[in-house]
Amino acid sequence: QDLVLQNKMQRKMGQNTGTCFQRCVGMDAINSLHSTTYEIDEKYGTNYHKRLLDFIKMIQTENLVIGGAMTDPKGDRSKGPAEQADPDMFVRIVEKNNKGVYITGAKAHQTGCINSHWIIIMPTMRLTENDKDYAIVGAVPADAEGMTYIYGRQSCDTRSMEGGDIDAGNSQYAGQEAMIILDRVFIPWEKIFMCGEYDFASMLVERFTCYHRRSYVCKTGLGDVLIGAAATIADYNGIPNVSHIKDKLVEMTHLNESIYAAGVASSYQAHKLKSGVWLNDDMLAQVCKHNVTRFPYEIGRLAQDIAGGLVVTMPSEKDFRNPATGHLLRKYLAGRKGVDVENRMRILRLIENMTLGRNAVGYLTESMHGAGSPQAQRIQIARQMQLGYKKNLAKHLANVKGDFEEPQENSEYFNRVFKISNEES
Amino acid sequence: QDLVLQNKMQRKMGQNTGTCFQRCVGMDAINSLHSTTYEIDEKYGTNYHKRLLDFIKMIQTENLVIGGAMTDPKGDRSKGPAEQADPDMFVRIVEKNNKGVYITGAKAHQTGCINSHWIIIMPTMRLTENDKDYAIVGAVPADAEGMTYIYGRQSCDTRSMEGGDIDAGNSQYAGQEAMIILDRVFIPWEKIFMCGEYDFASMLVERFTCYHRRSYVCKTGLGDVLIGAAATIADYNGIPNVSHIKDKLVEMTHLNESIYAAGVASSYQAHKLKSGVWLNDDMLAQVCKHNVTRFPYEIGRLAQDIAGGLVVTMPSEKDFRNPATGHLLRKYLAGRKGVDVENRMRILRLIENMTLGRNAVGYLTESMHGAGSPQAQRIQIARQMQLGYKKNLAKHLANVKGDFEEPQENSEYFNRVFKISNEES
Amino acid sequence: QDLVLQNKMQRKMGQNTGTCFQRCVGMDAINSLHSTTYEIDEKYGTNYHKRLLDFIKMIQTENLVIGGAMTDPKGDRSKGPAEQADPDMFVRIVEKNNKGVYITGAKAHQTGCINSHWIIIMPTMRLTENDKDYAIVGAVPADAEGMTYIYGRQSCDTRSMEGGDIDAGNSQYAGQEAMIILDRVFIPWEKIFMCGEYDFASMLVERFTCYHRRSYVCKTGLGDVLIGAAATIADYNGIPNVSHIKDKLVEMTHLNESIYAAGVASSYQAHKLKSGVWLNDDMLAQVCKHNVTRFPYEIGRLAQDIAGGLVVTMPSEKDFRNPATGHLLRKYLAGRKGVDVENRMRILRLIENMTLGRNAVGYLTESMHGAGSPQAQRIQIARQMQLGYKKNLAKHLANVKGDFEEPQENSEYFNRVFKISNEES
Amino acid sequence: QDLVLQNKMQRKMGQNTGTCFQRCVGMDAINSLHSTTYEIDEKYGTNYHKRLLDFIKMIQTENLVIGGAMTDPKGDRSKGPAEQADPDMFVRIVEKNNKGVYITGAKAHQTGCINSHWIIIMPTMRLTENDKDYAIVGAVPADAEGMTYIYGRQSCDTRSMEGGDIDAGNSQYAGQEAMIILDRVFIPWEKIFMCGEYDFASMLVERFTCYHRRSYVCKTGLGDVLIGAAATIADYNGIPNVSHIKDKLVEMTHLNESIYAAGVASSYQAHKLKSGVWLNDDMLAQVCKHNVTRFPYEIGRLAQDIAGGLVVTMPSEKDFRNPATGHLLRKYLAGRKGVDVENRMRILRLIENMTLGRNAVGYLTESMHGAGSPQAQRIQIARQMQLGYKKNLAKHLANVKGDFEEPQENSEYFNRVFKISNEES
Ligand SMILES: Cc1cc2nc3c(=O)[nH]c(=O)nc-3n(C[C@H](O)[C@H](O)[C@H](O)COP(=O)(O)OP(=O)(O)OC[C@H]3O[C@@H](n4cnc5c(N)ncnc54)[C@H](O)[C@@H]3O)c2cc1C
Ligand SMILES: Cc1cc2nc3c(=O)[nH]c(=O)nc-3n(C[C@H](O)[C@H](O)[C@H](O)COP(=O)(O)OP(=O)(O)OC[C@H]3O[C@@H](n4cnc5c(N)ncnc54)[C@H](O)[C@@H]3O)c2cc1C
Ligand SMILES: Cc1cc2nc3c(=O)[nH]c(=O)nc-3n(C[C@H](O)[C@H](O)[C@H](O)COP(=O)(O)OP(=O)(O)OC[C@H]3O[C@@H](n4cnc5c(N)ncnc54)[C@H](O)[C@@H]3O)c2cc1C
Ligand SMILES: Cc1cc2nc3c(=O)[nH]c(=O)nc-3n(C[C@H](O)[C@H](O)[C@H](O)COP(=O)(O)OP(=O)(O)OC[C@H]3O[C@@H](n4cnc5c(N)ncnc54)[C@H](O)[C@@H]3O)c2cc1C
Repeated sequence: QDLVLQNKMQRKMGQNTGTCFQRCVGMDAINSLHSTTYEIDEKYGTNYHKRLLDFIKMIQTENLVIGGAMTDPKGDRSKGPAEQADPDMFVRIVEKNNKGVYITGAKAHQTGCINSHWIIIMPTMRLTENDKDYAIVGAVPADAEGMTYIYGRQSCDTRSMEGGDIDAGNSQYAGQEAMIILDRVFIPWEKIFMCGEYDFASMLVERFTCYHRRSYVCKTGLGDVLIGAAATIADYNGIPNVSHIKDKLVEMTHLNESIYAAGVASSYQAHKLKSGVWLNDDMLAQVCKHNVTRFPYEIGRLAQDIAGGLVVTMPSEKDFRNPATGHLLRKYLAGRKGVDVENRMRILRLIENMTLGRNAVGYLTESMHGAGSPQAQRIQIARQMQLGYKKNLAKHLANVKGDFEEPQENSEYFNRVFKISNEES
Repeated sequence: QDLVLQNKMQRKMGQNTGTCFQRCVGMDAINSLHSTTYEIDEKYGTNYHKRLLDFIKMIQTENLVIGGAMTDPKGDRSKGPAEQADPDMFVRIVEKNNKGVYITGAKAHQTGCINSHWIIIMPTMRLTENDKDYAIVGAVPADAEGMTYIYGRQSCDTRSMEGGDIDAGNSQYAGQEAMIILDRVFIPWEKIFMCGEYDFASMLVERFTCYHRRSYVCKTGLGDVLIGAAATIADYNGIPNVSHIKDKLVEMTHLNESIYAAGVASSYQAHKLKSGVWLNDDMLAQVCKHNVTRFPYEIGRLAQDIAGGLVVTMPSEKDFRNPATGHLLRKYLAGRKGVDVENRMRILRLIENMTLGRNAVGYLTESMHGAGSPQAQRIQIARQMQLGYKKNLAKHLANVKGDFEEPQENSEYFNRVFKISNEES
Repeated sequence: QDLVLQNKMQRKMGQNTGTCFQRCVGMDAINSLHSTTYEIDEKYGTNYHKRLLDFIKMIQTENLVIGGAMTDPKGDRSKGPAEQADPDMFVRIVEKNNKGVYITGAKAHQTGCINSHWIIIMPTMRLTENDKDYAIVGAVPADAEGMTYIYGRQSCDTRSMEGGDIDAGNSQYAGQEAMIILDRVFIPWEKIFMCGEYDFASMLVERFTCYHRRSYVCKTGLGDVLIGAAATIADYNGIPNVSHIKDKLVEMTHLNESIYAAGVASSYQAHKLKSGVWLNDDMLAQVCKHNVTRFPYEIGRLAQDIAGGLVVTMPSEKDFRNPATGHLLRKYLAGRKGVDVENRMRILRLIENMTLGRNAVGYLTESMHGAGSPQAQRIQIARQMQLGYKKNLAKHLANVKGDFEEPQENSEYFNRVFKISNEES
Repeated sequence: QDLVLQNKMQRKMGQNTGTCFQRCVGMDAINSLHSTTYEIDEKYGTNYHKRLLDFIKMIQTENLVIGGAMTDPKGDRSKGPAEQADPDMFVRIVEKNNKGVYITGAKAHQTGCINSHWIIIMPTMRLTENDKDYAIVGAVPADAEGMTYIYGRQSCDTRSMEGGDIDAGNSQYAGQEAMIILDRVFIPWEKIFMCGEYDFASMLVERFTCYHRRSYVCKTGLGDVLIGAAATIADYNGIPNVSHIKDKLVEMTHLNESIYAAGVASSYQAHKLKSGVWLNDDMLAQVCKHNVTRFPYEIGRLAQDIAGGLVVTMPSEKDFRNPATGHLLRKYLAGRKGVDVENRMRILRLIENMTLGRNAVGYLTESMHGAGSPQAQRIQIARQMQLGYKKNLAKHLANVKGDFEEPQENSEYFNRVFKISNEES
């Protein structure tokens, strides 16, 4: 299936870049809009779905990169959009006319928005009737009038501007996030895919996160890189076969593959929606992402263990290139015989980069919050765990009497688990 | 695919029995013999494969239950079969004639052997040339001459003989293990599927454990039961909506589904062997089973937390039925209003049963050792983790110079991960 | 200090019995009543303290064993004592006269009550004004009129009645819990140490659990036994020096000593109360007990890993003594050369006993719930974690401006941490 | 005792600086030399102890800061000092005359050496007879001839040179490590405390690490800061009372206090050495440090969870001060009502600083490797875990017959545990 193939591609990209490669947000936005627009149209007789298909055709023809802009700044987290002291804390419609709508607000943490051609604006959470003005989905060109980008800082961000190619760690790739500020940005009607249907915000958000949480399989590609880096430094240090080192590499691999397995299983256990697209399994997508909020931190910890203290105390590339100190470093930073000192430094910097530096942002903190913080997954798991069904299993075995209820559950998880075939896949 | 369907059936069976339901060993034995006999024949011109197919036909026609007997007593674990003080510590050929072979030894921990019709005897580990006499695979009827069964004890095993149906915990099901002692048991040639080809023992064992470690998905069915039992007791105690309880149920579910995901992903990412059968992904099977050696213990711990101390201090059913004490217990063991006291006792006994009693054997210790102890999985993960490939990924990103080697790896894991399609599936 | 000495003795007793040895509840009850009665007297002019001292003198003279009975059955956990459907779900005063009071109710999970001489009855939780009748503390002889004991079942409890000394596991010791039912039990005034002062219930409960949670250091003695058992079976199996086995023994030791350290640190960081007794550090007592709700389960899991599957599938002592099967078992259950088979069986049964059998009740479930379930510790940690103080530390370093508040905290934890000397200790 | 007081001071310093404050290495060096020089003198009739006392007197009089330089670059980790391709990979004596000795080599990862007055050079591991030239301990002024310092890079190190006081995170403190290169540095005899007595290297290293691993209690001070920072940001975001947030703060506190407890217990359970100084408990020191290699990473992970994604995507202070963007950031980075936006930014930067930035070096990686990598603690735990003693406990309870051995153990751990009093403390 396409969903599994997307996962495989994500892992490969993760392996090849060692960073967040920023394509999946847009893809998952389009995936989730496909079915949501279809179902809005069905209920309200709108024609969002057709508009979306036209938009997709256009971007495929021109091969454009799409950014998915969901996350609002949110201000006071205990309050909804309409309850905030400042109404702009969530993106909202400030004016509507027969050509289109004007929106104001901001989108935070936008990965790769700077190198996108179009941005799809979407609401970030379930909305109530009071939040009607916040129920807006639309596509805007990345350079539309009224848009300001403010670049975020990352750990060690300035290293790549220092010259040299060692200290930056990952000599090839790094990601970036920015804040997008929208000041009365105009969206014409033909680029609008939801406008006021607040009751569909949760469907959109849930389907988006369902796709997107499974997309975090990409982090296993980064995990592969970090495992490879740890194995390399152990080799350079002369101890590739020491038992605790091997055991740690096994543990890192085990954790990494546990993430991968959940992503692939989620993609595989998909079901078809009304609009004809397939949606991966939501429970397993949550499980995948939830492990992503834990295991990369442990993998990173083990990588630092194997690396040794030099990963954080190594002198700079400039000192290495400096004639006065270079030969001293070349002498004293030597690993086992036959290893080029500079290569040893490069690998250590890569580990620093992925566990403390620029790509730690993508490998660790983004693993934590991207596609939703851990608690968001727990809430979704709670909603789908079908306790009524499981209680009946237990009661049956315990021979409980007279206390069976027909479970009233909105989750279809066990239907998917026990479905005999995915004919149409 | 059939492999995924087998997983789904296993979970269902686990849910319905809350114990080890003992069918998978035989099935996985046959699965792995299918391809192994084929490849032995190919190399040595034997005709084991044909014999095996005949045997399968026979058991399918007659609908017989097959036990898979692999594990030998092993004596001194630091020594191989031929090096033991007593040569019978592993099952071996003691005589061969033109009708068949006589074998002697024992098989330990045989789940469900007592209720099997035929037993397939297989070696338990990789063999060397010295161990030639130990390279024997064959099928014997469960009541063949020379076979003695010695029943193993289980925690709380005598409770089911006490009368009453509460204290046993799981009122319906329980498993059993026995030791089979083989004293010159005869196997005719047509039931022999390996004899002396010691170099194929490791292939058989590895493929068997590959199938079998993924079969531990059944434990997620038991997990479902235990989660359901914990949710029920929380409800009976009046606190189903307390936040730490709900959070623990979420954690239990998360862990349980992490196991399931790895099993299904392993089945899905299968590849076809020469004999035409499919073999599930080995790396992911190890990952699945390795999580099984950890998560059920944590799920069990959380279930005990939610259950409260009564799970281990509750008076007996006899005291409950006793007129002198019954009314007191009925009064003081009450939970929230409207809950039948006896039902509350039943659920607590089920939790005791699955975390300390008879089914703890199946849910915990069998999760630990069945299909191989944890370290066995780590060794297999180590053999397949393709560090050479991963080191190159890291070296590439770190811009390491002049230190790339073509990885010499016997694992095909990443080939499977990145294979674009499973055409023939 | 005496508190540290009590910890040392507890570990020793744990080592020597491998079970719950049941003395600490009574000791900790007396410890906490010493100061609480003193402070009640101070506020209300009562003379409970004097009565308590008299009682202590009596039991010391006669060398009596005291049981501490705190835990009520509690019925609906979401309701307080006075709100329950049945008012007897917590022990309460049903009549008062000039000789004393009559109490009714039950106490659950009473460790060792059967072999105590006197029982001290105490409330189990913080009480409100409505719960006045539940604010009763008093001592009753174990055989007072109106008391009924109902023995609890334990995993594998009947094994010790089977004859033989192997299958029971711990050939020497086992604990027991019973439910005590109190039907209008009389306590004369001179044995009453609280009566109606509901506002002191929380002080008593908190001080009792503060002492008692630290007393769980005894479980490190059991941990020592289990580590020793695991090391012995590895030795008997011929693999004492294999690296993963040694590593697991190290991990078990590390976890076990982490518990011990918290207990001793809590005892050491004590402070003196008004009545002159010392109270160990409450935060560290919570930390100690909270680790006890986690680590023994992991130590038990590792012990089962090292033990191998035989721990749950081993035939019975009767089969071993049976001439027909005994010699077969003697042959096939052999470990490495030189090891007596019966000794190997004994050690395996001990591990079964401590991880699934009778002493698993004491080593695992009692570690979970005894002295309060895990959530109870988290609540106490929350109350004492002095976030106000810590927020100021962070704000200061972050150079936050104009946002410092004087923390209003009821905890003295950091005062104890930074106290320079324990002069009077 | 002084040892406990040192721990308390360390926590306070950690709280006040939020970084590694660099004093303990020198203190612990002196502590361990006190007894080691005494015992060398006793065996070899040397007078190192007297020299050391003179040196201590001098530095106390002049109130000087001492750095402890132990860690050598080590080259190929599978080889000892004398086996390396380059003999200078460990510091060694290159010439000796009647005035003193000349040493060559390097010391890596030297915390705070740049701001020390004197450096004590010590060997980094157990030495064999072949390594005699490496058995050198001596004090040199920090600016002695032949010494070159090469500053190490840290994550985000250049931020503090950018101007502004927000982006650096911890506006007040940061640590630093450097590599010291020694090129024929001279040490006069009166400053030499070991010279050639290779058989005492392990005693020195073990006592040093025993003191030093317990000194990692300082990290609980940093933990207090991070907990405070997490609590502050939750408050600024409007969700201080949400249950999962509070639960995470409890978990962070629990882990932090588990470290503290082990440190204090180690200091408390000390014993007196021949030279008159006290040595803290070694087992518990290992346990303390081993938890330090794990828990701060988990505390850091939880802090990032609570902080939200902004911790890694927040724009720079320059954009904040920039008139074009400042008002936008002030608007959109607002938290709950009443919170100053700049303060919110400051706290987020502090969390970044401690989990990814400069002080992550001190809080995470130094927690991992400082005073020895995790495996070093496991080796020490293994050496002291007294399996013989524990096996006997288990054998006794299992009623094992005829298989008791007098344990031959070099550890005194249980003697210290069960010692009744520390009279002389
Ligand atoms: C921030 C920081 C501050 C420090 N401050 C000081 C200081 O002030 N003074 C001082 O003297 N030192 C200091 N240290 C050094 C510290 O003691 C060392 O980092 C530590 O001993 C580990 O040595 P290493 O960094 O060379 O790592 P390595 O020894 O290279 O270890 C890397 C990994 O390899 C493993 N390993 C290494 N050798 C073997 C082997 N032979 N067999 C099996 N496994 C092996 C280790 O277990 C580890 O997992 C500091 C370190 C840090 C990170
Ligand atoms: C082996 C053993 C020996 C013991 N020995 C003694 C003894 O000698 N003397 C004695 O007095 N006691 C003894 N106890 C009792 C012990 O203190 C209690 O088990 C403990 O306080 C928990 O109470 P409970 O068993 O009723 O569990 P419950 O209170 O039912 O707890 C079950 C679960 O529900 C949760 N829960 C309960 N109420 C609430 C609520 N209102 N809000 C949120 N969550 C809630 C708990 O956190 C827990 O997760 C012993 C217990 C055991 C297991
Ligand atoms: C409930 C249950 C049901 C089972 N059902 C079946 C069944 O139906 N059919 C069947 O064939 N088998 C069955 N098994 C057996 C199972 O496969 C074995 O338990 C497993 O292979 C472990 O073998 P063992 O029990 O002999 O443990 P051991 O091999 O003794 O292992 C104990 C420990 O020692 C370690 N160890 C052992 N040898 C070495 C070595 N050489 N080097 C390093 N470490 C070592 C292990 O890693 C483990 O930690 C069952 C087991 C259980 C518990
Ligand atoms: C590196 C990175 C890249 C990203 N890329 C993109 C992108 O390309 N496109 C995009 O749209 N988004 C992106 N995100 C944003 C991501 O989806 C958000 O970070 C995530 O949804 C969390 O929101 P937040 O950062 O505002 O944290 P917060 O919502 O402030 O969460 C902080 C903590 O508070 C808790 N919390 C918050 N509100 C509540 C509440 N009401 N009740 C209880 N607990 C609460 C959370 O559980 C969490 O523990 C990215 C984030 C990161 C870190």
